Amino acid sequence: MRPSGRAPDQLRPVSLEPGFSRHAEGSCLVKFGDTHVLCTASIDERVPPWMRNTGKGWVTAEYGMLPRSTHTRTDREAARGKQSGRTQEIQRLIGRSLRAVVDLPAMGERQINIDCDVLQADGGTRTASITGSWVALHFAFERLIKEGKLSASPITGQVAAVSCGLWEGTPVLDLDYPEDSKAQADANFVLTGSGGIVEVQGTAEDKPFSEPEFIALLELAKKGIGELTRLQRLAIGPSSIKSP
Amino acid sequence: MRPSGRAPDQLRPVSLEPGFSRHAEGSCLVKFGDTHVLCTASIDERVPPWMRNTGKGWVTAEYGMLPRSTHTRTDREAARGKQSGRTQEIQRLIGRSLRAVVDLPAMGERQINIDCDVLQADGGTRTASITGSWVALHFAFERLIKEGKLSASPITGQVAAVSCGLWEGTPVLDLDYPEDSKAQADANFVLTGSGGIVEVQGTAEDKPFSEPEFIALLELAKKGIGELTRLQRLAIGPSSIKSP
Amino acid sequence: MRPSGRAPDQLRPVSLEPGFSRHAEGSCLVKFGDTHVLCTASIDERVPPWMRNTGKGWVTAEYGMLPRSTHTRTDREAARGKQSGRTQEIQRLIGRSLRAVVDLPAMGERQINIDCDVLQADGGTRTASITGSWVALHFAFERLIKEGKLSASPITGQVAAVSCGLWEGTPVLDLDYPEDSKAQADANFVLTGSGGIVEVQGTAEDKPFSEPEFIALLELAKKGIGELTRLQRLAIGPSSIKSP
Amino acid sequence: MRPSGRAPDQLRPVSLEPGFSRHAEGSCLVKFGDTHVLCTASIDERVPPWMRNTGKGWVTAEYGMLPRSTHTRTDREAARGKQSGRTQEIQRLIGRSLRAVVDLPAMGERQINIDCDVLQADGGTRTASITGSWVALHFAFERLIKEGKLSASPITGQVAAVSCGLWEGTPVLDLDYPEDSKAQADANFVLTGSGGIVEVQGTAEDKPFSEPEFIALLELAKKGIGELTRLQRLAIGPSSIKSP
Amino acid sequence: MRPSGRAPDQLRPVSLEPGFSRHAEGSCLVKFGDTHVLCTASIDERVPPWMRNTGKGWVTAEYGMLPRSTHTRTDREAARGKQSGRTQEIQRLIGRSLRAVVDLPAMGERQINIDCDVLQADGGTRTASITGSWVALHFAFERLIKEGKLSASPITGQVAAVSCGLWEGTPVLDLDYPEDSKAQADANFVLTGSGGIVEVQGTAEDKPFSEPEFIALLELAKKGIGELTRLQRLAIGPSSIKSP
Amino acid sequence: MRPSGRAPDQLRPVSLEPGFSRHAEGSCLVKFGDTHVLCTASIDERVPPWMRNTGKGWVTAEYGMLPRSTHTRTDREAARGKQSGRTQEIQRLIGRSLRAVVDLPAMGERQINIDCDVLQADGGTRTASITGSWVALHFAFERLIKEGKLSASPITGQVAAVSCGLWEGTPVLDLDYPEDSKAQADANFVLTGSGGIVEVQGTAEDKPFSEPEFIALLELAKKGIGELTRLQRLAIGPSSIKSP
Repeated sequence: MRPSGRAPDQLRPVSLEPGFSRHAEGSCLVKFGDTHVLCTASIDERVPPWMRNTGKGWVTAEYGMLPRSTHTRTDREAARGKQSGRTQEIQRLIGRSLRAVVDLPAMGERQINIDCDVLQADGGTRTASITGSWVALHFAFERLIKEGKLSASPITGQVAAVSCGLWEGTPVLDLDYPEDSKAQADANFVLTGSGGIVEVQGTAEDKPFSEPEFIALLELAKKGIGELTRLQRLAIGPSSIKSP
Repeated sequence: MRPSGRAPDQLRPVSLEPGFSRHAEGSCLVKFGDTHVLCTASIDERVPPWMRNTGKGWVTAEYGMLPRSTHTRTDREAARGKQSGRTQEIQRLIGRSLRAVVDLPAMGERQINIDCDVLQADGGTRTASITGSWVALHFAFERLIKEGKLSASPITGQVAAVSCGLWEGTPVLDLDYPEDSKAQADANFVLTGSGGIVEVQGTAEDKPFSEPEFIALLELAKKGIGELTRLQRLAIGPSSIKSP
Repeated sequence: MRPSGRAPDQLRPVSLEPGFSRHAEGSCLVKFGDTHVLCTASIDERVPPWMRNTGKGWVTAEYGMLPRSTHTRTDREAARGKQSGRTQEIQRLIGRSLRAVVDLPAMGERQINIDCDVLQADGGTRTASITGSWVALHFAFERLIKEGKLSASPITGQVAAVSCGLWEGTPVLDLDYPEDSKAQADANFVLTGSGGIVEVQGTAEDKPFSEPEFIALLELAKKGIGELTRLQRLAIGPSSIKSP
Repeated sequence: MRPSGRAPDQLRPVSLEPGFSRHAEGSCLVKFGDTHVLCTASIDERVPPWMRNTGKGWVTAEYGMLPRSTHTRTDREAARGKQSGRTQEIQRLIGRSLRAVVDLPAMGERQINIDCDVLQADGGTRTASITGSWVALHFAFERLIKEGKLSASPITGQVAAVSCGLWEGTPVLDLDYPEDSKAQADANFVLTGSGGIVEVQGTAEDKPFSEPEFIALLELAKKGIGELTRLQRLAIGPSSIKSP
Repeated sequence: MRPSGRAPDQLRPVSLEPGFSRHAEGSCLVKFGDTHVLCTASIDERVPPWMRNTGKGWVTAEYGMLPRSTHTRTDREAARGKQSGRTQEIQRLIGRSLRAVVDLPAMGERQINIDCDVLQADGGTRTASITGSWVALHFAFERLIKEGKLSASPITGQVAAVSCGLWEGTPVLDLDYPEDSKAQADANFVLTGSGGIVEVQGTAEDKPFSEPEFIALLELAKKGIGELTRLQRLAIGPSSIKSP
Repeated sequence: MRPSGRAPDQLRPVSLEPGFSRHAEGSCLVKFGDTHVLCTASIDERVPPWMRNTGKGWVTAEYGMLPRSTHTRTDREAARGKQSGRTQEIQRLIGRSLRAVVDLPAMGERQINIDCDVLQADGGTRTASITGSWVALHFAFERLIKEGKLSASPITGQVAAVSCGLWEGTPVLDLDYPEDSKAQADANFVLTGSGGIVEVQGTAEDKPFSEPEFIALLELAKKGIGELTRLQRLAIGPSSIKSP
């Protein structure tokens, strides 16, 4: 029995609330149980210097945690004067994951800045961030279409993410913080709506895991992401994104 | 007629929602119209080195804005590697304002860290932060009482804040962003529940203001803060804080 | 009786010595008793990027304390790698105060950098800085007129500053360090030559102050600033600045 | 045909040269073809503050590239004043990988600092770093045994790493830089001597990859790491490490 | 003829004004012509961690230039967030030079912090700093003797510094800024009162210099430093320092 | 007898191995005994902003030590976030030394970046760096000639460096670390192939040294540098550099 009482293949209650932020071109408040992340997508009509005149756009991401999103207060990165290695690792992952489903030349020479700010943390903040950011990104592109700056969405498919882990030998889906901190192994999967693998990050916390164990985690992830992408489609409403 | 259509002495709709954050010892989501600030109070049983063995406690504050809380995206301070002068000025103001109504020796050698994070900005973020933080601070002390670490709240009174300004020559209460950016003068008042002045910061934006104008702003502030402290008392419920 | 032995409405001996610095376009060594600040004004024919092609100039200020200007040595900010919140707050105040009496479009697209460096500190460094900087700024503009780059000074009036406080219940003018560190309340006033309010910053150190107390401080400030602006006029000699 | 002319399952020439560094307690110059990394292991008899009195030791890693290890010069991180996100990601990976095969309580309250400095880069610097660092770590523990500070090596097994990728649809082993920069997908595997999975990091560069493709990469990695761990055993000579 | 009109072996007018700073335990305003440096010596009863329990004291130095001490304004190092290589080089030189004439064990486990702040620069700021700091240091030790914390000064001799250079082939003493910026070679000499060499730093600016040229510069320096140490003795008055 | 057993005027075994680095336009691994420094020269076709349109080129240098190049591990400067004063002092010295033998206008508006990275340290890293960098620089210019971008080398002569010191009163050449750490005085000489002085840096470690002692050190240096420049000529092979 996992600490949360959930079945091994059961997600936490997930909600995706688009339009949470009044100013952002796209936004989504995503909740995976007690993990709440505000994802915003901001359009910047300029690309970074190294991309100018390439005819391509860019999607980049930043990630932060409110100091008291965590069980005990975490130092504010702005006050410490630098972002931790963990923060940088996560924001690089979010950016890569989203770019995997965007046709960069089709978006024109502009940049979308994704901001994922964790209001409350209970495990899985990076997977919630990716899942919610895709929704925010969708609406930023919708805005560009509405303004006549794009004729179609450069999004080529859905992308969502979930963590899986070995809990006392059993593969379980969508670890919350108490589960994550005691899992024997922990893997984050970023998959497309059609089940393609975009990113896999598996880490043995306690002892190495075997190939069959890893395959079992991947199977769980595919099931969970099937559900997450269904919720994403509900969140964006009728739209140009095809079902998987 | 002010841009917001409000009467000169009319606050924006204000709400104070305690307990917004699951992990913090005290928290309050404060809204002054479209300005939304999440205030948390975190108890730290250690004081900073320079206060050890003084027998006194400390209340300190940090302030931040989510990058897309603003009309156009603002750079993330954690990514830029330092907090702006404005941020530091505001967090020092919040800390001083709260300490003015706390009996520091009575709270014991511990520190309360206040975090004010702006989820959405539309003017008056510093005054909303002070007003909401007082509520978060109240609940953090309640927690210490409940845990038997304090026998009574060291809070000696209420404190709240509001901005006032001159709009086309007319003194107006609680400026929102469009009003603030065009006001001829702008002053922030931090007053106690009994009308005592804790902090005054007045700045002539366009041309100097006269003494009578300044007095008129102070009168408006007293009215507004009377209403804000009433809402604070509603938010904390029946408690040891006396009405003014 | 205040610690300094001065009457409640008595300034410390004040001197303003223009031309202290050989290289600066304008300079003034200002002394408020044992508080000595070297103020320089440097002309930069370029404005910051965000002001280019606006047809306006800019006046900005930086502030620093020599490590041993203080009673005990203070860490050097250049060695610590960042300016404190206090430093930033003060230099923003100095800049705003001076800009309030400069016609920015009239000064052309150039910038004046004011540097206020405290050689010796005994309270009131920010008010001395503002008072002395106005003199330095005056001479920088005189230089531009002499060089034919301006036809008239873009200064629209005088600006000076003084602190006031409550000393054992009595309002007193121009606090020195021993007074400041024990005052019950402390306010800095920045006024124009004609008595207009440019900046007010009042802080209750010990307990909140009342509105009548605050008005009494403002009255003292007006008296003190009348004297300071008289000394400024003496320091600049016969010039285009009208008496108030 | 891959650019390097190697068979799909063929490693580059690999060499592991222990004792390259005169001062370090353990060291190894590892070469994967033209990728050369100097790995050193330094014993520090103190652990970081948060580990004191836990009875456990720690292994941590830092990573850097010489500015001209790369095809075109890369800015020196010490001059830029911070380590990139990529650097931090890699050094965290190296540390986790090594700790997976160390019995931390058995090593006593001391820390081993691994430094991986890339003298020349041609792809696969992180996998070479992990493979070489294990050898350096081995010798640092040997030194502690020789000095009588440990009675047996706390190393519980071997760990090595290799990258695999999809080159024009074909799974290939041990990507060099030209292959890596054009691969359709790229995965780094960190495995133990007995084939257990310690870390997996897969990234689709161009388009998502399928589960069978991912399994094929894992199979290649197992083969490559079998060879790398054989070379590690040769490098350390007769020792307490059992063959897999 | 050198630009300054001085004879080749002629110092600029030099003055040493002790006690310039009200708060510092020792201070001296040193002027070498238009180069003005405020030197202060601050006693710190604690030594840095790495010196604790060594029974020895330490003398360290920091150096800074006011932004407008220079002909055109120099960026403030505190604002730029770091000290330049030049600044660090100079402050290390000042510290080493002073320690060469201090019996560190005799001064007890305390530290003297020397601060050299350039109020006005016209070449030779580092040599003026060393010369003036020795006077400031003297008075800090006098203070410790007066307070009964030391029975005798731990200063073992005098130290002073001067620059020399080749001006159109002629060796000249004590370069001012116009001379320094066009000199063919430039050397700073730090000598004791008895002519011993403490530091030599020679740099060919334009073309290498010969051994005889270098010896000629050293001869000039000895003459100049003879005069500087005479002025130091006048500045400190009758004291325990023997004439050379 | 010096600790190394060498004769007073004997260099350590010196080797200069050009072409050590595969990617750099010029490179040299230099060994002075157990001091090993990798020197690379990288061509950058852009000059820094302040040199644009001057028609001149620039040679600059950076220096670093691998964390475990030293007897005990030194913190990584990239991790500490800044370069030490010592590092900056050394890299400025290397740059000045090389520029002394380069005709900057003749090299065209481009920059050569020298990187000196210490793989193993045993005293004299800065002198080895200068000596080896000259070889790396030579080959970078050869590359420009080969590519038709220059018609002749802008190098006007050789430059090399060596340290000398007083060991128990005896002048000795080329100090290794045990000698350096106990020498009574220590001087670094940078001389041209024809014996001209480019840089001299002498520091009395223990007690001041006399003029004759200093001259003796210079004589030793001339002898040592004669040998070093001979080895440089061997390393570059037949070339346009004339023998001294």
